[in-house]
Amino acid sequence: MKRITFILIATLICGIASAQFAGVQRGQQPQPLPEGFKPASTNTFLSPYPAVNAQTRQAMFRVVAKTAQNVQIDLSGKKYDMTKDTAGVWTCTSDPQVVGFHYYAVLIDGVAVMDRNTEAYFGSNWESSGIEIPEGPEGDYYRFNKNIPHGQVRSIYYWSEINGLERHINVYVPAEYEQNPDKKYPVLYLVHGWGEDENGWSNQGHMANIMDGLIAAGKAVPMIVVMPSGDIKTNSDVRQASGDVTKIYADNLIPYIDKTFRTNTDKQHRAMAGLSRGGMQTTMTVFANMDKFAWMGTFSGFFVRGDDVVSAFNGVFKDPAAFDKQMNLLFISTGTEERNPKDQVEKLKAHGIKNIVFHESQGTAHEWLTWRRALNEFAPRIFK
Amino acid sequence: MKRITFILIATLICGIASAQFAGVQRGQQPQPLPEGFKPASTNTFLSPYPAVNAQTRQAMFRVVAKTAQNVQIDLSGKKYDMTKDTAGVWTCTSDPQVVGFHYYAVLIDGVAVMDRNTEAYFGSNWESSGIEIPEGPEGDYYRFNKNIPHGQVRSIYYWSEINGLERHINVYVPAEYEQNPDKKYPVLYLVHGWGEDENGWSNQGHMANIMDGLIAAGKAVPMIVVMPSGDIKTNSDVRQASGDVTKIYADNLIPYIDKTFRTNTDKQHRAMAGLSRGGMQTTMTVFANMDKFAWMGTFSGFFVRGDDVVSAFNGVFKDPAAFDKQMNLLFISTGTEERNPKDQVEKLKAHGIKNIVFHESQGTAHEWLTWRRALNEFAPRIFK
Repeated sequence: MKRITFILIATLICGIASAQFAGVQRGQQPQPLPEGFKPASTNTFLSPYPAVNAQTRQAMFRVVAKTAQNVQIDLSGKKYDMTKDTAGVWTCTSDPQVVGFHYYAVLIDGVAVMDRNTEAYFGSNWESSGIEIPEGPEGDYYRFNKNIPHGQVRSIYYWSEINGLERHINVYVPAEYEQNPDKKYPVLYLVHGWGEDENGWSNQGHMANIMDGLIAAGKAVPMIVVMPSGDIKTNSDVRQASGDVTKIYADNLIPYIDKTFRTNTDKQHRAMAGLSRGGMQTTMTVFANMDKFAWMGTFSGFFVRGDDVVSAFNGVFKDPAAFDKQMNLLFISTGTEERNPKDQVEKLKAHGIKNIVFHESQGTAHEWLTWRRALNEFAPRIFK
Repeated sequence: MKRITFILIATLICGIASAQFAGVQRGQQPQPLPEGFKPASTNTFLSPYPAVNAQTRQAMFRVVAKTAQNVQIDLSGKKYDMTKDTAGVWTCTSDPQVVGFHYYAVLIDGVAVMDRNTEAYFGSNWESSGIEIPEGPEGDYYRFNKNIPHGQVRSIYYWSEINGLERHINVYVPAEYEQNPDKKYPVLYLVHGWGEDENGWSNQGHMANIMDGLIAAGKAVPMIVVMPSGDIKTNSDVRQASGDVTKIYADNLIPYIDKTFRTNTDKQHRAMAGLSRGGMQTTMTVFANMDKFAWMGTFSGFFVRGDDVVSAFNGVFKDPAAFDKQMNLLFISTGTEERNPKDQVEKLKAHGIKNIVFHESQGTAHEWLTWRRALNEFAPRIFK
């Protein structure tokens, strides 16, 4: 009774707002989830679907689309036909999925749209739906741990004269930051990849959980992590902004961070890493500013054109001793199921580069599970 | 040439990621925007559409949907038929819109989905698209101002034993917070409304720009603003959580904030306000904890059942002098185009309540422009 009263009041209250959605079908209440299925962690708050079975690693989808002729789920390269019930609710269950984060789309009469009951993730240069297939205990390092202190991810806009825009960044500060008002911290600049944005590392990557865990366990030193936008847009109607972005990182962002946060500003306390095209941006930025960075990482993003890695990047590797003197760590990682730069790493080692670490994520491809693992391996190795 | 090389490399790099989207139509490049139209501020970074004409206040939409039979835009209670070109790109231009933020949907063969080129906004209990129709200079107070210092919105997860969940909050700290490591600040708890979530005030409401402007102008005192989730879900398959939430605010959230931030912890330095159903939650929370709050606001959310406002809320208004002694400010606001509690306010004043302020937003309804204005009026009146 109480609930009915509440719904009546809510309906009254929201009459005007709801009127904007005349004709939008909110759908019937779903049945209880089948045995073994739980709401995906990627769902919006309390949304029951999509649901995931942790044992079988299958995902169940539910879409309300009374007027559609055909509805499918496009997940991991396969299209699943959905079945419609008499109320216009479409459902399907996927094959077992690889653990980790997967983008997916709902196809309404062939048109790829989002599932409105999951969080929105920016991927492939537009808003997308995503689903997390949970790992077992080996995934604990990127899950929320209620028993340790938690850092904060700060959303900040700053003005850049270089491109005349207010620019959005996310900045992770460790849990202890507030409790040590006189302490200064090293800074890791951490960049996303193609088609994603400055929210990727927190949303898709769970970087805050990873850093909280490493710092609480004493494996990584407390550090600030700055996640800027890489301005990655490959549609030909917009500028190809890599050059600009390197300049923005070095000339606008670093001074802004050093002014706004309690940072150690020497190169020994500044690192940069990026995934995929963010790895490319890392090489462009760090190799052009060897006086500013002493640690670097490229996660699935060490891209050398041609075979001659020793001469690549304007010859930065040519004198191995000089490189090692300037760079404490060049961390190169990849998933075993994607393009592998192992040969290039071997060539650099044979050439005499010592401060190089190569990491392979077993059984993973060009995807977020690879990059969560990469961050988990990289962060403990810097600033010490 | 450089661009072509880059696209080839990007295509190579992203082959695996893109494979997940086989069949997803990314569409042709749009033509340059027509005279007078600019990308909406609600678009994802560098997306040209939807576009808005600031003079005519019309919006142009563009949807790639080759296989759809019928595509419409559902905006402000009207459905606009879109026209398809030979490449499967659908476009339409809306009537002039009221200024401010509007939710909208794309109807693909009648099914309401999101526009993937705008930011995602949580509204009506699911992810939605939104478009901002810009005001003239009178809207400057909620726009980014590059000439003043900016606070930070911090994204934080904390553990609540009450409902056994990690809970997400956004916390605004003023620009000066970092520069005054010994200073303590008052705290405003600011709650969203029905169908929205803890991100609403920052994303739809531009609260950081509003607070930055008020504080920079000396109109409001520097304060911390905590934006929690109101757990608002009216689907009958999930709990109706208002009772829980009041307890979570008082017993979990306030202690967490006072432990984590530099706050003044006495009631003179604690306020609460909310919009719509968040206004209802504000009355529930504050009236049950008069020892904890000295300032309160209900924006389009002062809901009294029946005519007897003096006896409402368990009689909190019955002794006007006692109420005024406990509460420095009861701020009640509304838009002139929605349900108006003016009569109730008059009754309370006639009854003898003095610490009451009533604000009407001219020409606006149950919508974000009303609430931006409400915050802009409310924040200068508290903590002084």
